Amino acid sequence: MASGTLLYAQSGGVTAVINATASAVIQTARARRVKVLAARNGILGALREDLIDTSKEPAAAIRALAHTPGGAFGSCRVKLKSLEQDRAKYERLLAVLQAHDVRYFLYNGGNDSADTALKVSQLAAEFGYPLTCVGVPKTVDNDLAVTDCCPGFGSAAKYTAVSVRECALDVAAMADTSTKVFVYEAMGRHAGWLAAASGLAGQDPDQAPHLILFPERPYDEPDFFARVKATVERVGYCVVVASEGIQTADGRFVADAGAGKDAFGHTQLGGVASFLAGRVKDELGYKVHWTLPDYLQRSARHLASKTDLDQAQAVGIKAVQFALKGMNAVMPVIVRASDSPYRWKIEAAPLDEIANHEKKMPSNFIRKDGYGITEAARRYLEPLIRGEAPPPYGRDGIPKYVELKNVAVERKLPAYEV
Amino acid sequence: MASGTLLYAQSGGVTAVINATASAVIQTARARRVKVLAARNGILGALREDLIDTSKEPAAAIRALAHTPGGAFGSCRVKLKSLEQDRAKYERLLAVLQAHDVRYFLYNGGNDSADTALKVSQLAAEFGYPLTCVGVPKTVDNDLAVTDCCPGFGSAAKYTAVSVRECALDVAAMADTSTKVFVYEAMGRHAGWLAAASGLAGQDPDQAPHLILFPERPYDEPDFFARVKATVERVGYCVVVASEGIQTADGRFVADAGAGKDAFGHTQLGGVASFLAGRVKDELGYKVHWTLPDYLQRSARHLASKTDLDQAQAVGIKAVQFALKGMNAVMPVIVRASDSPYRWKIEAAPLDEIANHEKKMPSNFIRKDGYGITEAARRYLEPLIRGEAPPPYGRDGIPKYVELKNVAVERKLPAYEV
Repeated sequence: MASGTLLYAQSGGVTAVINATASAVIQTARARRVKVLAARNGILGALREDLIDTSKEPAAAIRALAHTPGGAFGSCRVKLKSLEQDRAKYERLLAVLQAHDVRYFLYNGGNDSADTALKVSQLAAEFGYPLTCVGVPKTVDNDLAVTDCCPGFGSAAKYTAVSVRECALDVAAMADTSTKVFVYEAMGRHAGWLAAASGLAGQDPDQAPHLILFPERPYDEPDFFARVKATVERVGYCVVVASEGIQTADGRFVADAGAGKDAFGHTQLGGVASFLAGRVKDELGYKVHWTLPDYLQRSARHLASKTDLDQAQAVGIKAVQFALKGMNAVMPVIVRASDSPYRWKIEAAPLDEIANHEKKMPSNFIRKDGYGITEAARRYLEPLIRGEAPPPYGRDGIPKYVELKNVAVERKLPAYEV
Repeated sequence: MASGTLLYAQSGGVTAVINATASAVIQTARARRVKVLAARNGILGALREDLIDTSKEPAAAIRALAHTPGGAFGSCRVKLKSLEQDRAKYERLLAVLQAHDVRYFLYNGGNDSADTALKVSQLAAEFGYPLTCVGVPKTVDNDLAVTDCCPGFGSAAKYTAVSVRECALDVAAMADTSTKVFVYEAMGRHAGWLAAASGLAGQDPDQAPHLILFPERPYDEPDFFARVKATVERVGYCVVVASEGIQTADGRFVADAGAGKDAFGHTQLGGVASFLAGRVKDELGYKVHWTLPDYLQRSARHLASKTDLDQAQAVGIKAVQFALKGMNAVMPVIVRASDSPYRWKIEAAPLDEIANHEKKMPSNFIRKDGYGITEAARRYLEPLIRGEAPPPYGRDGIPKYVELKNVAVERKLPAYEV
């Protein structure tokens, strides 16, 4: 039995498979007889000393985590600043870790979490406290550096491709007398990874999605309108996938154009799809429909990618193994060995190569005309949505998602206001 | 071999399982050696003499229709008026049917389609043309009279319940520092069937959906705000499901309040969820997210209900059997024999009891406070979303949906402009 306790925390937007990582972490640690605490609501729980004793959960519940979306211990949107600026918080963190004999800290999140894990490890070294910090990758945005892809992205990508294929069949059937243009809004404020994944829904240019709008390319309204019109005239209908982060050439977010206040001073929450749909209706006169899947696209565990699930579990297992080996300030990353057949492995990468970096989509993933994906993009994306991993369903027709008891650990320190 | 040809047409909004009905119709007719033509784009194809020869499709393609969403032959939103008003169209229809020796006309749709099928049968009788007309039920709106439920509804209901459960897990994980109120917009302009189905996502009042807004109850903003606030304070977050058709006490659609023109004269396509989200943000100050699944909810074949699929196929089989027996102006309807265990059978109902009627949701399905469903609603709804019937997936991670060749039948009549 390894000495010391492992603290696991979830950070940032949750995904369909972040709990699969948690499940793998806890199972791997249990097998090595390492006690696992979880921080409630990510780093906030660690600061507040609001910790959960995962040993109170039966093995079946921990296994069921692997097919449950959301964040079982709660997540948070809190970014710690530099060691200088937020020194009191980092010191409080370290005090909490020490109070509970935590020797392994696993922080499951994106760029910010990697940064936090790195700084905690630096402070521990400064204080001479023996602590091994491991970042664990997660984000539907697929924007982490070093790793080939990010757990969570593949499932959201599969949701996107399948949903676009399905709604395109609907639009195709109705286009003669009803909706001719359909706009699907994909997550992606800075990079068009999920919008790109929609391209997997079709193979040739007449198959949906007919037009993809990427944040990496300026939104040119006249050009877009001309293409919508040409597509409707050629195909009979047009399915557009728009990344929420598209911008005009002068750097304004298109989404903001649809938002604002109405005549009564009420907030208008438009979004890109709503805005584009309105513009197409006004300027081209077509009947339009649009969808904003929002959180559905990152919580649809029922449609998870098997590749993604496997990788989410693999990074969890490796994170524990790395930690117990004392590999400090690293992250288990996914390394692609080949596209076809798709082969991958997990390696350790230094957190300082990941923290606060952002991986952009390669420019050769976007077709020259700017409205679709290339073969290079397909080779990269397609393996990530491959395979199905449906959750078990109850007799009531709904997946059997688990709710943990989340029993709190007794506090040992004075209360702390974050 | 029965003499004469069978003409099958799809009408109105398509569903995840209307093609399963088509598949059953064609397979059943083939087994009886009856030739099946399909009208392209519903009744429009019949009027235009734009007919498809389904015998050109291999058996595997017809089987694959059972797991393919959308409308394989095209559908339409066209309602014929009375025999007096639209007599020329009805006569043209009859001429097309006669020209292709059609003796069985199966029209797969909702109230309007039942009405059209009924009128065609009346005109045929008047002209002494031997024709058997059968309406085949389909609609995600679940508003057809006589039948206990409508094929298409169960799958959309399952999509709704599962999606609400999933996004609620996401919101629950994030609520401490991010989104506290989430609004899901469900289809249902006149009746809250799909909004009601979301109630299956939770059991007790603290489980999502916390508040359901039905078109059957007036939208009372101060009361709604008070309940949102109370829920956030008690549970930590609040998931709202709003039917697109909710109205204020004076009969205005809430969706229209969010629509209109912006300061530049651009069309604002708000929708209910967008409007409610904006109001909650303004008045209560919570961070909100919302989703508008739109067509995704009725095309999500990947999440079809097995009950729904079975019933969609059963009405197709029975429709052919009724037709070949000469049972004219009827519709195969679903009769519920018991809730638990759930048992159902198909019977024939006269089209004139169905045409142009609309089934409302029973008032005892809505909780007294107006914001949730009752046990009676659960007993009715739960069997309809039961069971899974996933499509086969390709190696590319996307369901193997079939595209038919849709080979046109040679025209025999002069062209006709609809």
